[in-house]
Amino acid sequence: MTGLAGFMGAACPIPLDRYPTVQLAHGGGGRFSAQLVGEMFLAAFGNPALEVLHDGAVLDLPGGRLAFSTDSFVIKPRFFPGGDIGSLAAHGTLNDLAMCGAEPAAMSVGFILEEGLPMDELWRIVQSLGAAVRRAGVPVVTGDTKVVDRGSGDGIYINTTGIGVIPEGVEIAPTRARPGDVVIVSGEIAVHGIAIMSVRAGLEFETALESDSADLSGLVGRVLAAAGSDVHVLRDPTRGGVASALNEIARSAGAGVRIDERALPLGDEVRGACEILGFDPLYVANEGKFLAIVSPEAAGEVLRVLRADPLGERAAVIGEVVGDHPGRVFLRSSVGGMRVVEMLSGEQLPRIC
Amino acid sequence: MTGLAGFMGAACPIPLDRYPTVQLAHGGGGRFSAQLVGEMFLAAFGNPALEVLHDGAVLDLPGGRLAFSTDSFVIKPRFFPGGDIGSLAAHGTLNDLAMCGAEPAAMSVGFILEEGLPMDELWRIVQSLGAAVRRAGVPVVTGDTKVVDRGSGDGIYINTTGIGVIPEGVEIAPTRARPGDVVIVSGEIAVHGIAIMSVRAGLEFETALESDSADLSGLVGRVLAAAGSDVHVLRDPTRGGVASALNEIARSAGAGVRIDERALPLGDEVRGACEILGFDPLYVANEGKFLAIVSPEAAGEVLRVLRADPLGERAAVIGEVVGDHPGRVFLRSSVGGMRVVEMLSGEQLPRIC
Repeated sequence: MTGLAGFMGAACPIPLDRYPTVQLAHGGGGRFSAQLVGEMFLAAFGNPALEVLHDGAVLDLPGGRLAFSTDSFVIKPRFFPGGDIGSLAAHGTLNDLAMCGAEPAAMSVGFILEEGLPMDELWRIVQSLGAAVRRAGVPVVTGDTKVVDRGSGDGIYINTTGIGVIPEGVEIAPTRARPGDVVIVSGEIAVHGIAIMSVRAGLEFETALESDSADLSGLVGRVLAAAGSDVHVLRDPTRGGVASALNEIARSAGAGVRIDERALPLGDEVRGACEILGFDPLYVANEGKFLAIVSPEAAGEVLRVLRADPLGERAAVIGEVVGDHPGRVFLRSSVGGMRVVEMLSGEQLPRIC
Repeated sequence: MTGLAGFMGAACPIPLDRYPTVQLAHGGGGRFSAQLVGEMFLAAFGNPALEVLHDGAVLDLPGGRLAFSTDSFVIKPRFFPGGDIGSLAAHGTLNDLAMCGAEPAAMSVGFILEEGLPMDELWRIVQSLGAAVRRAGVPVVTGDTKVVDRGSGDGIYINTTGIGVIPEGVEIAPTRARPGDVVIVSGEIAVHGIAIMSVRAGLEFETALESDSADLSGLVGRVLAAAGSDVHVLRDPTRGGVASALNEIARSAGAGVRIDERALPLGDEVRGACEILGFDPLYVANEGKFLAIVSPEAAGEVLRVLRADPLGERAAVIGEVVGDHPGRVFLRSSVGGMRVVEMLSGEQLPRIC
């Protein structure tokens, strides 16, 4: 959370001595709701579109292709090394728009709060979300708040939905992966999932790992500016990890994907934790990494752009799209054998995002 | 739910003998998630944009003004006379877009499911949501599903977020209410709230009332086509009721609003229930009614258009915008006195939408 100290330290605009926790009335549509929105949310998200406080926002956007993406965040715990549910909710939707090839233009935020949530926790989360969208230069233009009775939620759930503008010449779709294409990952995998596991009740272990949760939209924009329509597929491997994301792409494209275990960027801490916990890092969630499937001619340039950015400095080619075994993903193991990489079956760790 | 019998009776595409309830894995990003999305959600919402199953949808929209609105639905109980959380989630966002003067163009749906939710309930809700957006002609183009552990939710919460296109010449904003404008309500007030109360645990009472939950976007479109920029403000008085909505408008516009108690369309059942329960119908939530503040010249035409539609047949002029007492709402009571109508303070009935 470097660089946010000034903003993040601001006092909660709701008087904590009078309202130490969220009340049902904060979702009731009356004075309490108006105070929460008018004082806390406007302080954190304020911009001209939001300040109208109408049932929705009015945006002026150019005609053409827009990306539209939604995500709900239910992560447990709400605060974790490297972030919290607020910054995660911002990054998640910014990244989903980026994975459509879009430049994020506006975001909505919907809160489902549980009666009794400490008001200062809400304030920290709201500030963190506000700081993340401000860094990305994307306004929160409309929102909604509901409060559920104690016992019917888990503190806070956040939905963010975003609109982005897809530039001319960008053509991202999972169906565009074609044999010969190169599979690139933007950095070390499995970091978010392992960081969350390290603080999850019942699983806690010592690690210096922090979640990689980050806004990738700026970096993706530079990749697209450099390689244009040679970038065929983009995907952030969140729930289900790299394995599930590649399986989805392989199915959509009707092509095979072959990856090389030795090429996977994997940190020592993550590798060690996976060995102890019995997890395969290919299935562990990421929040600040993406997969790019690009034409072989563009791979060098894409890697160069990625590695020039701190968010992509460990980017690597991890495999290729192949014509045989359409719809399947294969791994060449570090000892040379080949095995099928299935989609995640069941649930590795719930509530990871 | 008239007219939906054929669709609503379709068998659940997830085998109920194997998966009678929602599992954590249905939100895990692997095979179970893919089955839920690929079989249930595509069956109910299927359209070309959604079928791409990418991180977001790509829309082709004309340039110009877009409306963008989000709402989360946490209503209790999930099924109620006249609707359910699915149809409500569709109508709520269609109506919020309509209140911006927009023609709804696309919608996202985010589910937060609780482990253990009966799968057939989810299927009924998903069908109901699908039927409602289909009637409105608005595609669900992108979505998200999270599953939280048992005890951390309340069965199902739904976020819907919508994008709409605002036609040329339409100019809706709460700040546009001006002295002399006429305040119109599209029909009987307080129906949704009283219908929900009639089935809320601990409050149950006998009534034939059904929620007025309905998609108002078609009717609003006809009003705007007839009266154009003479329609200054639109607002659906949901949480907080007519009283809170008018207070918000009065504050935004810096004008006063005077309404006439005798003019309020109020059904006998609603009036009786309010008397018994001690509720003021001005504060009870609506889901199928809207307030229109229009220039006096256009009021007759707006009423004519409203009354020609079953959703607006009891539309009435209920008051006017005045220059004195800016920011306040006054009621002329049926016995002739005047009283201030405050914004809702506290919470009348939680989880009404």
